[in-house]
Amino acid sequence: MFNKQELIEFCENARSSYLDHISIDCVVFGFHEGQLKVLGLKIKNEDSWYLPGGFVMKDEPIEMAANRILKERTGLDEIFLQQFRVFGDPDRARPHHDMYKDVLPPEENWFSMRFLTIGYYALVDFVHVNPTPDGHSESCTWYDLTDLPDFKLDHAQIIKSALDTLRLQLNYQPIGYNLMPKEFTMPELQKLYETILDKKLDRRNFQRRMLGFGILSRSEQPRKGGAHKAPYLYSFDLKNYQSALTEGLKGGW
Amino acid sequence: MFNKQELIEFCENARSSYLDHISIDCVVFGFHEGQLKVLGLKIKNEDSWYLPGGFVMKDEPIEMAANRILKERTGLDEIFLQQFRVFGDPDRARPHHDMYKDVLPPEENWFSMRFLTIGYYALVDFVHVNPTPDGHSESCTWYDLTDLPDFKLDHAQIIKSALDTLRLQLNYQPIGYNLMPKEFTMPELQKLYETILDKKLDRRNFQRRMLGFGILSRSEQPRKGGAHKAPYLYSFDLKNYQSALTEGLKGGW
Repeated sequence: MFNKQELIEFCENARSSYLDHISIDCVVFGFHEGQLKVLGLKIKNEDSWYLPGGFVMKDEPIEMAANRILKERTGLDEIFLQQFRVFGDPDRARPHHDMYKDVLPPEENWFSMRFLTIGYYALVDFVHVNPTPDGHSESCTWYDLTDLPDFKLDHAQIIKSALDTLRLQLNYQPIGYNLMPKEFTMPELQKLYETILDKKLDRRNFQRRMLGFGILSRSEQPRKGGAHKAPYLYSFDLKNYQSALTEGLKGGW
Repeated sequence: MFNKQELIEFCENARSSYLDHISIDCVVFGFHEGQLKVLGLKIKNEDSWYLPGGFVMKDEPIEMAANRILKERTGLDEIFLQQFRVFGDPDRARPHHDMYKDVLPPEENWFSMRFLTIGYYALVDFVHVNPTPDGHSESCTWYDLTDLPDFKLDHAQIIKSALDTLRLQLNYQPIGYNLMPKEFTMPELQKLYETILDKKLDRRNFQRRMLGFGILSRSEQPRKGGAHKAPYLYSFDLKNYQSALTEGLKGGW
């Protein structure tokens, strides 16, 4: 939370820099050890979690704004980022409107305004990013989708809507490519699909279909170590993947 | 175009009623005689066409705003309407900013503001609607997608993006159900798919797959009239259709 002086300065700067009424919130997905995870910011001195979000500068294209906000608030840069939905319920940020009501009158308080927020989802390779909190946040951490902390405003709903979008876009966007490490086993890929689709899949069918798409390359070397037969490692053939996605992964009409 | 007095009144009313910076534009699709069509408004005394659009009231949920705007500008009501994308290029409405520059100074002119527009697509049964222009418009008419007039601002791009969305959502949204008349022949349905996908489909494969989904009911009576063998008529079994769409039409994983 801001103290009074910080709030006054923030609001003055916001009024001169940002468009009224519009914000951006990002749902950043990562996948690790069989779990789909989402990035949350814990605000300093509050038991409150938020998605990384922010405002759009007066002359800034919204895609640039989304990238800038994500970098400022989490340190993440140059990652797969897709707009997916506007959340426009007039009451969605009601708790925010009252937050500083004893500190500043509503007409001077940026947070008293109604905001529509544009939801973006981002996909990252978990092991290659290092989320870093900004100055307002105590931490910027991964949370299992099955065990989320208390996200404020409508942020839990935004996360759910982003996950629904992943499910619908699984055949049309390079979701596996962006979430998986460079090399992975077939059971690891299957686990990602099962998590997004929220259901168990048949191992043999999954492998047969995945290989049938012609989008995976198998490494010469199986994974080293472990007591059992070493599993094969796969990676995405990006060119074939992109070309298959234009028709939809399950084949065109 | 507004004259000066009309413009002053419109801007005063807009400032007190609407949220700054946010507009809504609707791409209304209809399908008739093998052509996918889109609804355009021709502005009075201008050679300018626009999508039916408008602004969001200060306390109005955006879904309600989209429905209200569509009704006010085209007379259409209670139709299938889906948000699909925000268009947020700062220069997207530059021609509008200058439109009244000799009539009102920018700080008093509502149209000088930057607007992000939320795109909605609508699907209607062509033969059951009667588009009616509002007071600003000379006409509200269907145009073939292959032969569009000169849509202003970024509206041609919004139409293209809506069509891309139809293509991606063909297996997940009741697009056929909302665009086709109650009863139709298999070649008519195939033509709709071909138009949305922008490619020819094999007749026998299409029929086999469509029937395989179990979402069509065949009428007892073939279509009457015509010199040739009368074709069978089909209608959607809405319950089966909805249930198949939750998994995606081509079958779940």
